[in-house]
Amino acid sequence: MSVTTPTILEVTAGGVTTPNGYRAAGISAGIKANQRPDLALIVSDRPATAAAVFTTNRAQAAPVIVSRDHLAKSGGVAQAIIANSGCANACTGDAGLQVARQMTVETSRLVGCAPEEVLVASTGVIGVSLDIDKIRGALPRAMTALASDQGAAAALAIMTTDPFPKEAAVRISIGNGESSIGGMAKGSGMIEPMMATTLNFVTTDAAVPAPLLNRALREVVNETFNAITVDGECSTNDCVMLLANGASGATVDEHTYPAFVQGLHTVCLRLALDIVRGGEGATKLVTVTVTGAATPAEARQAAKAIANSPLVKTAIHGGDPNWGRLIAVAGRAGVAFNLSRAAVIIGGIVLFKDGQPYDEAAPRAATYLKYREIAVTVDLGAGDASSTVWTCDLSAEYVKINADYRT
Amino acid sequence: MSVTTPTILEVTAGGVTTPNGYRAAGISAGIKANQRPDLALIVSDRPATAAAVFTTNRAQAAPVIVSRDHLAKSGGVAQAIIANSGCANACTGDAGLQVARQMTVETSRLVGCAPEEVLVASTGVIGVSLDIDKIRGALPRAMTALASDQGAAAALAIMTTDPFPKEAAVRISIGNGESSIGGMAKGSGMIEPMMATTLNFVTTDAAVPAPLLNRALREVVNETFNAITVDGECSTNDCVMLLANGASGATVDEHTYPAFVQGLHTVCLRLALDIVRGGEGATKLVTVTVTGAATPAEARQAAKAIANSPLVKTAIHGGDPNWGRLIAVAGRAGVAFNLSRAAVIIGGIVLFKDGQPYDEAAPRAATYLKYREIAVTVDLGAGDASSTVWTCDLSAEYVKINADYRT
Repeated sequence: MSVTTPTILEVTAGGVTTPNGYRAAGISAGIKANQRPDLALIVSDRPATAAAVFTTNRAQAAPVIVSRDHLAKSGGVAQAIIANSGCANACTGDAGLQVARQMTVETSRLVGCAPEEVLVASTGVIGVSLDIDKIRGALPRAMTALASDQGAAAALAIMTTDPFPKEAAVRISIGNGESSIGGMAKGSGMIEPMMATTLNFVTTDAAVPAPLLNRALREVVNETFNAITVDGECSTNDCVMLLANGASGATVDEHTYPAFVQGLHTVCLRLALDIVRGGEGATKLVTVTVTGAATPAEARQAAKAIANSPLVKTAIHGGDPNWGRLIAVAGRAGVAFNLSRAAVIIGGIVLFKDGQPYDEAAPRAATYLKYREIAVTVDLGAGDASSTVWTCDLSAEYVKINADYRT
Repeated sequence: MSVTTPTILEVTAGGVTTPNGYRAAGISAGIKANQRPDLALIVSDRPATAAAVFTTNRAQAAPVIVSRDHLAKSGGVAQAIIANSGCANACTGDAGLQVARQMTVETSRLVGCAPEEVLVASTGVIGVSLDIDKIRGALPRAMTALASDQGAAAALAIMTTDPFPKEAAVRISIGNGESSIGGMAKGSGMIEPMMATTLNFVTTDAAVPAPLLNRALREVVNETFNAITVDGECSTNDCVMLLANGASGATVDEHTYPAFVQGLHTVCLRLALDIVRGGEGATKLVTVTVTGAATPAEARQAAKAIANSPLVKTAIHGGDPNWGRLIAVAGRAGVAFNLSRAAVIIGGIVLFKDGQPYDEAAPRAATYLKYREIAVTVDLGAGDASSTVWTCDLSAEYVKINADYRT
């Protein structure tokens, strides 16, 4: 087998502790009122190369500011990630910044590394202060709970409105040895990442030089976490953090890079689609493909516009093959669009093509729309570029969840 | 009183037939299944100067194409507007274009004017063919029903999911005489006009030269119909049509232009806000003001982003003063934003200012959010420009309406 052949040996159960040399814990620190798990800790048994992508929201949360600062100071090395749910520590002023820094200091003391080798992330309500005493009190328990089979517990501890935890893992062959990549993610509202998403933590036991690790993460995030949307909202706390500790003995280089990217893509896409499946109020996973665009950027723009359209999302929720709404969104998406060459295809059923409606196919499309996972395609009739993004339907449950979020 | 003083003498009940020299009718042509009114006719007793603003959606409906063509051919003169609900005649191919043209031909024959002096508009389901025979059969009845007190009937006949009809009228003094301006509008989903909105018909009995009429319409639409949103969706059929027939004997010139614009603004803003109040599933009218923007365009962009945010709209629906969501949207709106100088004010209650939260004010804000009409202000901390737009909350009822629209 050539070392340049990307090979995924197995898509496995598991998450951040599937790769060798990682332990995790998920416990309750009392940040959430109801004693559900709210503090996650991931520790590598040796310093790992680290890469991260952060939210593009200009209202950056305190943990985002601190983690970015730490990556710069450490030169892309990290040994631990501390994350909490139940409070975003965003828009919390200087006091919030102090809390985020203190979280890394306390963690570093217990782990035995430098504070800048600890990354920090938070998720939950914006604008509420995070109580450092609760975290300080809980951290020793988290250290005690650390184990190589506690990835699932950590995945539980970063949930907010998520209906289920999200984990994924693969074993890959990268030429000189086997390695694993595992990850966990958190949804499930305020999801349209724009360069990152929510909280996502990915680990690998491959050794990956920092430049390759950064390149792989950006390449994969663009086609996974950045290609999903639940509600078009980009959070103040979004981040994807990736650690590579080299415990497998396998090293990624330019030759084995494609295999690593394929493995990373598999893990990230599974996590990203689970975020959509678990979107607030979601009952359907919708694959939106735009073809016939003038440029790849316009294809993505139109696909995102369709994926965020409340009229499209409610029609799909109701199982209504109202393809005119897809055309209406394509027409307002601000991209090149030629109505007389455009097309709408729902589940392989052509409903509109070359400017003419085929409404008689609607009943078949209505039957198709009863599935849980569906695909719609819009051809813009304006070029050769295409893009695929994923979204969910919009249900009354979404409104209920978000009208009552803090009460 | 100086002729340059804009003077609204009275905001009156009434609509498109309030100005002199206009008759209207609203009848059932059988386009809607349930015999509700679906055909509106507005006729001026003499040729009127006409201006219109059409949707910027690139999937332009057949009636939009025909009306724009007629305005060009007639040099901005029209004597009648024919409009139907129950079918948008959009994405209906060449056959749909023929139907739209035929609607104007039939109307012109009965009214006694040239076909290009008839404007046409449609609203309803996209992609379904409009039956010209139904309109041909109903038009003579509409002609018989035409009367100067039937503006309200016409307003009923353009409704789709609107919970109530929308009319507004003013009497204005424009220096050399009194005139009236009256209008009617249709909502209530697929509302984020972007240069026009839904169907809006405005009449005046002032004489207004075409260049002034066009200027006034564009100026006013930008601050009224283009400053509202229900769901961020721009329709294939949006249009605002304005007729000025001179029946009052008063003439608008450069000196009296400000008075005319003030009157037109009053009518259009009342219609626009009624569209939001009657937005699909809406329970609250929300005035969103953005201050501290770098430019007016960025202020508008941020205000629209906030007004279209499902998380902001659901929080307001639930009466939750979750101001962090407002900051999160401002931060992702793609405009200059300075978190350390930003502010959020809900109903005069400061919840966030200069980077620091005032969450203790939240209970008072929650009480305020119980009102039906509320105001939120976000300061971007990045300049001196501001903008105000109007939106409604997002309720489970919106989902229900749009999941079942065609079934």
